[in-house]
Amino acid sequence: MRSPARLRIPPVAPDEALSMRYQLVRQTTRTLAEPLSEEDCALQSMPDASPVKWHLAHTSWFFETFVLAPHDPGYQIFDPAYRVLFNSYYNAVGDKHPRPERGLLSRPSLEDVKAYRAHVDAAMLNILRAGVTDSALHALVELGLQHEQQHQELILTDVKHLLSLNPLRPVYHASWPLTPVQGSDAAWQGFDGGLCQIGHGGAGFAFDNEGPRHKVWLAPFELATRPVTHGEFQQFVEDGGYQRPELWLAAGWDHRCAEHWEAPAYWHRLDGRWHSFTLHGLVPLDPHTPICHLSFYEADAYARWVGARLPTEAEWEIAAQCAGGPENFLESAALHPMPAQVPPEPGTLGQMFGDVWEWTRSDYAPYPGYQPWSGAVGEYNGKFMSGQYVLRGGSCATPGSHIRVTYRNFFPPQARWQFSGLRLARDASHGSEG
Amino acid sequence: MRSPARLRIPPVAPDEALSMRYQLVRQTTRTLAEPLSEEDCALQSMPDASPVKWHLAHTSWFFETFVLAPHDPGYQIFDPAYRVLFNSYYNAVGDKHPRPERGLLSRPSLEDVKAYRAHVDAAMLNILRAGVTDSALHALVELGLQHEQQHQELILTDVKHLLSLNPLRPVYHASWPLTPVQGSDAAWQGFDGGLCQIGHGGAGFAFDNEGPRHKVWLAPFELATRPVTHGEFQQFVEDGGYQRPELWLAAGWDHRCAEHWEAPAYWHRLDGRWHSFTLHGLVPLDPHTPICHLSFYEADAYARWVGARLPTEAEWEIAAQCAGGPENFLESAALHPMPAQVPPEPGTLGQMFGDVWEWTRSDYAPYPGYQPWSGAVGEYNGKFMSGQYVLRGGSCATPGSHIRVTYRNFFPPQARWQFSGLRLARDASHGSEG
Amino acid sequence: MRSPARLRIPPVAPDEALSMRYQLVRQTTRTLAEPLSEEDCALQSMPDASPVKWHLAHTSWFFETFVLAPHDPGYQIFDPAYRVLFNSYYNAVGDKHPRPERGLLSRPSLEDVKAYRAHVDAAMLNILRAGVTDSALHALVELGLQHEQQHQELILTDVKHLLSLNPLRPVYHASWPLTPVQGSDAAWQGFDGGLCQIGHGGAGFAFDNEGPRHKVWLAPFELATRPVTHGEFQQFVEDGGYQRPELWLAAGWDHRCAEHWEAPAYWHRLDGRWHSFTLHGLVPLDPHTPICHLSFYEADAYARWVGARLPTEAEWEIAAQCAGGPENFLESAALHPMPAQVPPEPGTLGQMFGDVWEWTRSDYAPYPGYQPWSGAVGEYNGKFMSGQYVLRGGSCATPGSHIRVTYRNFFPPQARWQFSGLRLARDASHGSEG
Amino acid sequence: MRSPARLRIPPVAPDEALSMRYQLVRQTTRTLAEPLSEEDCALQSMPDASPVKWHLAHTSWFFETFVLAPHDPGYQIFDPAYRVLFNSYYNAVGDKHPRPERGLLSRPSLEDVKAYRAHVDAAMLNILRAGVTDSALHALVELGLQHEQQHQELILTDVKHLLSLNPLRPVYHASWPLTPVQGSDAAWQGFDGGLCQIGHGGAGFAFDNEGPRHKVWLAPFELATRPVTHGEFQQFVEDGGYQRPELWLAAGWDHRCAEHWEAPAYWHRLDGRWHSFTLHGLVPLDPHTPICHLSFYEADAYARWVGARLPTEAEWEIAAQCAGGPENFLESAALHPMPAQVPPEPGTLGQMFGDVWEWTRSDYAPYPGYQPWSGAVGEYNGKFMSGQYVLRGGSCATPGSHIRVTYRNFFPPQARWQFSGLRLARDASHGSEG
Repeated sequence: MRSPARLRIPPVAPDEALSMRYQLVRQTTRTLAEPLSEEDCALQSMPDASPVKWHLAHTSWFFETFVLAPHDPGYQIFDPAYRVLFNSYYNAVGDKHPRPERGLLSRPSLEDVKAYRAHVDAAMLNILRAGVTDSALHALVELGLQHEQQHQELILTDVKHLLSLNPLRPVYHASWPLTPVQGSDAAWQGFDGGLCQIGHGGAGFAFDNEGPRHKVWLAPFELATRPVTHGEFQQFVEDGGYQRPELWLAAGWDHRCAEHWEAPAYWHRLDGRWHSFTLHGLVPLDPHTPICHLSFYEADAYARWVGARLPTEAEWEIAAQCAGGPENFLESAALHPMPAQVPPEPGTLGQMFGDVWEWTRSDYAPYPGYQPWSGAVGEYNGKFMSGQYVLRGGSCATPGSHIRVTYRNFFPPQARWQFSGLRLARDASHGSEG
Repeated sequence: MRSPARLRIPPVAPDEALSMRYQLVRQTTRTLAEPLSEEDCALQSMPDASPVKWHLAHTSWFFETFVLAPHDPGYQIFDPAYRVLFNSYYNAVGDKHPRPERGLLSRPSLEDVKAYRAHVDAAMLNILRAGVTDSALHALVELGLQHEQQHQELILTDVKHLLSLNPLRPVYHASWPLTPVQGSDAAWQGFDGGLCQIGHGGAGFAFDNEGPRHKVWLAPFELATRPVTHGEFQQFVEDGGYQRPELWLAAGWDHRCAEHWEAPAYWHRLDGRWHSFTLHGLVPLDPHTPICHLSFYEADAYARWVGARLPTEAEWEIAAQCAGGPENFLESAALHPMPAQVPPEPGTLGQMFGDVWEWTRSDYAPYPGYQPWSGAVGEYNGKFMSGQYVLRGGSCATPGSHIRVTYRNFFPPQARWQFSGLRLARDASHGSEG
Repeated sequence: MRSPARLRIPPVAPDEALSMRYQLVRQTTRTLAEPLSEEDCALQSMPDASPVKWHLAHTSWFFETFVLAPHDPGYQIFDPAYRVLFNSYYNAVGDKHPRPERGLLSRPSLEDVKAYRAHVDAAMLNILRAGVTDSALHALVELGLQHEQQHQELILTDVKHLLSLNPLRPVYHASWPLTPVQGSDAAWQGFDGGLCQIGHGGAGFAFDNEGPRHKVWLAPFELATRPVTHGEFQQFVEDGGYQRPELWLAAGWDHRCAEHWEAPAYWHRLDGRWHSFTLHGLVPLDPHTPICHLSFYEADAYARWVGARLPTEAEWEIAAQCAGGPENFLESAALHPMPAQVPPEPGTLGQMFGDVWEWTRSDYAPYPGYQPWSGAVGEYNGKFMSGQYVLRGGSCATPGSHIRVTYRNFFPPQARWQFSGLRLARDASHGSEG
Repeated sequence: MRSPARLRIPPVAPDEALSMRYQLVRQTTRTLAEPLSEEDCALQSMPDASPVKWHLAHTSWFFETFVLAPHDPGYQIFDPAYRVLFNSYYNAVGDKHPRPERGLLSRPSLEDVKAYRAHVDAAMLNILRAGVTDSALHALVELGLQHEQQHQELILTDVKHLLSLNPLRPVYHASWPLTPVQGSDAAWQGFDGGLCQIGHGGAGFAFDNEGPRHKVWLAPFELATRPVTHGEFQQFVEDGGYQRPELWLAAGWDHRCAEHWEAPAYWHRLDGRWHSFTLHGLVPLDPHTPICHLSFYEADAYARWVGARLPTEAEWEIAAQCAGGPENFLESAALHPMPAQVPPEPGTLGQMFGDVWEWTRSDYAPYPGYQPWSGAVGEYNGKFMSGQYVLRGGSCATPGSHIRVTYRNFFPPQARWQFSGLRLARDASHGSEG
């Protein structure tokens, strides 16, 4: 049997750059928590979500457990109890505090957790400034930064879920990013398919689940030039889309009935008009922004209603080579999908990256020849490869430096609290109708 | 049909005294919250418990809703949203925020709630200092104070439950109140029974459920001179009491199996010795303190194991006329049951008041001729008269000024998070064996 | 400690009579199963109910386990596996097949169970015909017969529940017993109360829970001269009784909401008119028959709506000394409550026995001085004394020879599948308004 | 948008042949029910399973609803209530009796259902003997027969589950089919992969989900020459396979913990030796028979333990072109997987068809260009395409005439009550170690 894959080493990256990146990433996390009170940071609104305080601690735990404790002989463990408290799911590391009870921990306090972060940062910068020559160590630091960026997105989506349940409708950030635009129709862009290659194979960091690079055969297909918008999805709602089982997968329909879904997550009907709860408060739906907070089931039902389908992840990845236009990531601070300002250039696809994660019809499965990383970090991705679907392209809550064309995000088909939307696909023979 | 009962008016109480009492009671609540952080106050550890912040707000809501809004024309509602947020269970007042979601409210902040308290206090003192001549209003203020005292006890028991779930075993108050004592055996005190009277009938405040005063016939009975202790209960545990269904009521046994009870709540076995989690941290069991944190089912099983039984509430109330000795209430600040320092005087019963609530075998039912209060406060007690058992005498977490010989506390038979213990009873023919 | 109570010995009953009674009771059970197919007898419609086949076997198991195995040295156990399969709840006898899985047993077949009954009957008659001189044995046989009569009622109520869930609305017995009558208003009958005695104390069989006979003090009270009828209850339904929380106990209201109760069990609205599912099929409500299939909560809410209350079991038992008029028991074969044909004689109460069990407001608790029987049959009653309410008087599905004035039936407050109704009570001072 | 696919028409099949096949298939169903009593046929052991009586009725309902009612003007509906009672999941047909309540129907009786079958058979044979010239009708009859064959397998697996829960361990069929054999080691058979074609494309019946035929690219791979056996899987159990989370997918481990799995379904440890419950009763494990009653999660964990993996369905289908050796289907009446009698011929794979369904690592998804059938039968397959995995090859309970190399069976990953096992796969570079 072959050895498991090892963490990839990024290309010659000057250590100064690594220490600088470390500080930038860590600072971003702190910035995201700034508008929140101790109480906002302590609560857990559902088992799928975690308190912000837990995210702040767990991302530090990751550096302490995988970098400092094994590689820095002089490192002093901050608090031995944290090893269990802030372990997310690594069986190889030992016991874990039960996930649904993360919101029962009023201690350690937010202040304690901030002290923990400072303690870890000091030790990390000590190492990084001295220069990291061990490539395995380098790779683990890089992984820790990528990991922290994933939790930056979760901080935003988890706190959005928490605030959404509060009848006072609290606002995370008051300034509203949208300026009125004229919408434009989506068009179809065709692709020839054939024998293609997808997956990560070159230099630079990638998660183990993005490789190995491999061949796939694709029939000719077409993708929409932009994601489906709130306005388009509203037509589905108003056409009775949530009352017509023939449009839904059976498991999706069961879910819809059990959960009484009548519209996407965070939608509210006030005075005869649809509104949606955002990180900027409750606002009227903007018809031109990409639809978000859909489950896979809703995305799939919408596509069926239109007479189209979701793309496979291979189709998406091949098509993404034609991506163009502006990208709305975390760095834009919009914290909400933005409308396309202009139609994409001919031959390009707009908004492939940023704005909303795009559900694909591909289940989250190992690529041919996939091997998880060795050691405890081998639990990072591989063991979740059942019962989930792949999303592509990042969202308005994803750090832009975190995303790649080969990046595979994954969630269960019923998950709705991410910025998840869709882009339509269809088989190529529709050409003339596009 | 007779009119429903009205709130009793306390005997001529100078208004100055009422305003003084108001300040003392409200100050006590603030004092209880002082050792707690914003995060401690925000969390809800189970649906039966509420966040401390919620208790702080709800007790103010009670004055705002039942005193200020209807009786003070110049009163400015602090925040209209609070009417729903902090309504506990009054259908007559309107909608209620769902009880299991009290722990999802990071807003209003603890600071907001403190401002709410100050706002209500200012308006209340305005009224009270002007002098309350309307006896109905006087009664409502009194009810608000009694209500707040009940929530003082819940603040302590709810936060104890929350802290108990934290693997860090946080301490609410560090100083440990116990000094070593010699235990003494319990004895039996006999009572003749016959045609007796129980229930509240005289002057002074009482809840509607304590009346009317009425006749009951009691066969001769005996009560133990003190509550069962931790040491005595430990013998039950070690005799396999939790593995022998013949000692338990069927519903209790089902509960024990479903919840995997092997000992009272908060007991932990460390290094071969039983400890218990207290508001002062995890401590070794003290054999001479009254046992607490028992469900009705465990109290009943213990009594059966001994060959005795629980008293009825009528027996308890008649016997309580012979109560003597020191009383350990909230004011003693022990926050834990204390051992009897000396055996009670002959003919008296020790520790009838304070230390631990004593389960009776009486279900919580209306007394003959009972009428709930009129208006919304009629929901205070009467509608809970099914599926619960009566406890008597108050505990170490009860304000001493809150308790009476006729006071009826009530909880479902499976509840364990109160300071609930037991005192043994038996029929009188056992005289010579006592 | 006193010894536990022993089974009462019935007064000198000639053995021939016992063997005759044995045959009559056993034959009645067979008769009740006759209209049912193998399939009807095999199914279990909810955990509270049991398959008819299980009842047929369990009642034989009772004689085998408590009479034949210990007292007949020559008895051959029919099948050792049945000891576990048909044990209902006797921990002292050993393991039990889980109650909710009684409906998963296609084997033994109904035919096997009938053979089991014949085997037990042959052995029992052998003993009985030889003459039973041992009074303890005599008492156990008597208990077995009383036990079988209880299961006769359960056969009818359990199969009614099963058939009610079948969209084909099958009929247990086709002939409809009702003939039209004119209804008459209920009146109030007053009782002086004072120091009374209730409970079983004399000769003749009684369950342990009916004793000891003891004194109770009753304030003056009044009882309605007949039970509440379907027509009266329909007014409650139509007055919004199921939508007004102020009429309900809190636990009852929670139950109503969770279970979406909008009317009593088995009511269906067809073409604008209320019908009810009976053992004779779906029929329009007859306004003059006593209401049945109420939970305690619904009975209590109805009484509150009227401005009355439920009687205590002591009130009921004292009043039952004035019972008069015809009695509709199982033997009448109506299998449905019947209307009062004529108003009761002055000074008497109609329909106290038979027709419908009457909910009391008394929780099912031990009488003062209660001791359960010794041995395994001590589990018969005592261990169920929590969380249930007492019903009195028997129903149209109760064998008439099974009931007594001291008889205490008991069910949880949410149970609705018995023939359970109510009779109103109130305090006596209402005299002139009655 | 293209029209949905239509039911395929089988190649010129003489109508006489169709009427003959109809009779044979329907007779097989009756034969399978013969060893069962009315009671066996009425019970439902879990929501996933259905009573045998329901299967007997539903397969007739299928012909009545999709063939007779729309195509035979003279057809008399047997009972209008059956349209709802025996609808499995066709929303287009209307209401459905709730699946978990199929076991609450004692009526219609088994005899009624047999009469229903006879009524449908008479009408069907009337049509078939007259000759079916309409190709759409022909296709629907064919679909009805294929459908009935699927339910033949479910009759066996559902009744096995029911009998397994009975402490009496009833036997479906007494004669035990196994004769002792010597086991032989599995070997690896290599495949080149490359650009291949899978899926149904030719003549003959196939389900819509088997097409269209399409290209896939496969890397070189190897498959084991026979399925994993009971003896091999026992080593996994004894190596602690059920206690080692690192071998499991995360969702599988959660399932294992929640369900307390310690071995495959139906395994029991008696007197220190593993036994398994079969349709022939409880028997000691035969080490040489293919392992069955595994969930996807267990199959996957076993493969990981060995250092191999599950095949994809494309790999399986390509490899199945080299299938050889005897096939153990329903027709062999073994009703249990059988050991390989001899090692497969060089270059062939043994036991690819029959014995046990083989889990693949492919989720059940639409093939490129997939279109469901038009009309109500379009609900047959497509709407289940989420959350399930594909199994290939048929089992000892599958009719041999029902299976094809392109046949895609599918179940949720936690399902264990089918005859589901596995065959190992690995990437081809292992060549020299095989």
